[in-house]
Amino acid sequence: MVASSGDHTVRAFDAELQRLADLVVRTGGLVESQLAAAMQALSRRDSALAATVIAGDAKVDALEQDIQELAVRLLALRQPVAEDLRHIVAALKIAGDLERIGDYGANVAKRTMVVNQAPPVRTVAAMPRMAGLAQEIVKDVLDAYVERDVERAIAVWRRDEEIDELHTSLFRELVTYMMEDPRNITACTHLMFIAKNIERIGDHATNIAEIVYYLVQGRPLKDARPKGAVAAAGAAEPSQDVGV
Amino acid sequence: MVASSGDHTVRAFDAELQRLADLVVRTGGLVESQLAAAMQALSRRDSALAATVIAGDAKVDALEQDIQELAVRLLALRQPVAEDLRHIVAALKIAGDLERIGDYGANVAKRTMVVNQAPPVRTVAAMPRMAGLAQEIVKDVLDAYVERDVERAIAVWRRDEEIDELHTSLFRELVTYMMEDPRNITACTHLMFIAKNIERIGDHATNIAEIVYYLVQGRPLKDARPKGAVAAAGAAEPSQDVGV
Repeated sequence: MVASSGDHTVRAFDAELQRLADLVVRTGGLVESQLAAAMQALSRRDSALAATVIAGDAKVDALEQDIQELAVRLLALRQPVAEDLRHIVAALKIAGDLERIGDYGANVAKRTMVVNQAPPVRTVAAMPRMAGLAQEIVKDVLDAYVERDVERAIAVWRRDEEIDELHTSLFRELVTYMMEDPRNITACTHLMFIAKNIERIGDHATNIAEIVYYLVQGRPLKDARPKGAVAAAGAAEPSQDVGV
Repeated sequence: MVASSGDHTVRAFDAELQRLADLVVRTGGLVESQLAAAMQALSRRDSALAATVIAGDAKVDALEQDIQELAVRLLALRQPVAEDLRHIVAALKIAGDLERIGDYGANVAKRTMVVNQAPPVRTVAAMPRMAGLAQEIVKDVLDAYVERDVERAIAVWRRDEEIDELHTSLFRELVTYMMEDPRNITACTHLMFIAKNIERIGDHATNIAEIVYYLVQGRPLKDARPKGAVAAAGAAEPSQDVGV
């Protein structure tokens, strides 16, 4: 059988769409390992590892740039409609969220280096749990993207609420330490911003979950979404962490 | 003279592109007034005004949604290339940055309401200057978009560095107040996050400036950019505010 020229064009386009999706998955993998390293640098007070994370963020940025260029080229040359268009828009948006998750990871690493210059603050119990949870939901939402798994995407929202709750209790804990001993103040303010970064990572994972839903279902997820998660993803900062 | 059907299609498309640009400008105007109200609520300790800002953010989100829908529809139906494609991509990206500026403004308002529940902290000198500067560069970058003014866009980056410097000195000032009197700690941590929100508004204005450059020149701005501004826009958090 000989493929017609039309078939050939279609197959070439499919290959390009697949390449776009592969780039997104690759960016996601890199962001996951950046996050793992950032969290390890934080918990082990490892400034050398933190420096590696900061340097590695440029690779994430470059991959996002590649995704943008390929997506815009496909939009221009292939003039896609319906599901193909949705694939390209989803890749663009997910890449944007991944780039921001990478930024937050790099910022955790930057602040870790500053915190490491001060004597250790008493163990902040909620921090490793929060960091672990953030890593898990980033992994889950990337799996949901690869497998086009809507149920898994929806589960990400629910788990993001746990992160928000941990963030609230962590904030209170840090205020208490600052009040107990003013020498803790500088380190604790950086830990507050680190916690905030981790909480924002959860919000961006939630955004990606929403995009996966749109990609698979062809319509935005509004009603299926738990109430708390709507607030968390809709605002730059969820209201519950403002009230603490 | 009677326009051919081809002319008619072209003119209809131009009208749609204009409508897209108008939506972006309208969103920008709304974000400007939200910011002005948020900053006023902060400086006058006006919780009623802050509540208005928080409620008003939904309008910004709805406008961004409108822009996204129109942009995706134009991509699908009109299959634009070259400059037209760039217009649509630019509108999409600017809308995203405006939506985030709106979020940060709403968050300033949320935290203002919390800060207002505590007794007033001593005047923080850098805060109103920083807030004023952030409002100015948002206005400037929107003017640059309307007038396709590259010089004005580039000036926005330079001014964003001033915001970063004010942010650094404000952070130090707040740490000092917390050390002087532990009763200031809770209010000061919220003021720190407010300052951080304002600093991030500057970063997003810088992003928009970069998009205006790309829109007008057809290539990304890399070399023309001052060094400090590259760091500020490239990272979630500019390095200078991490080192304080």
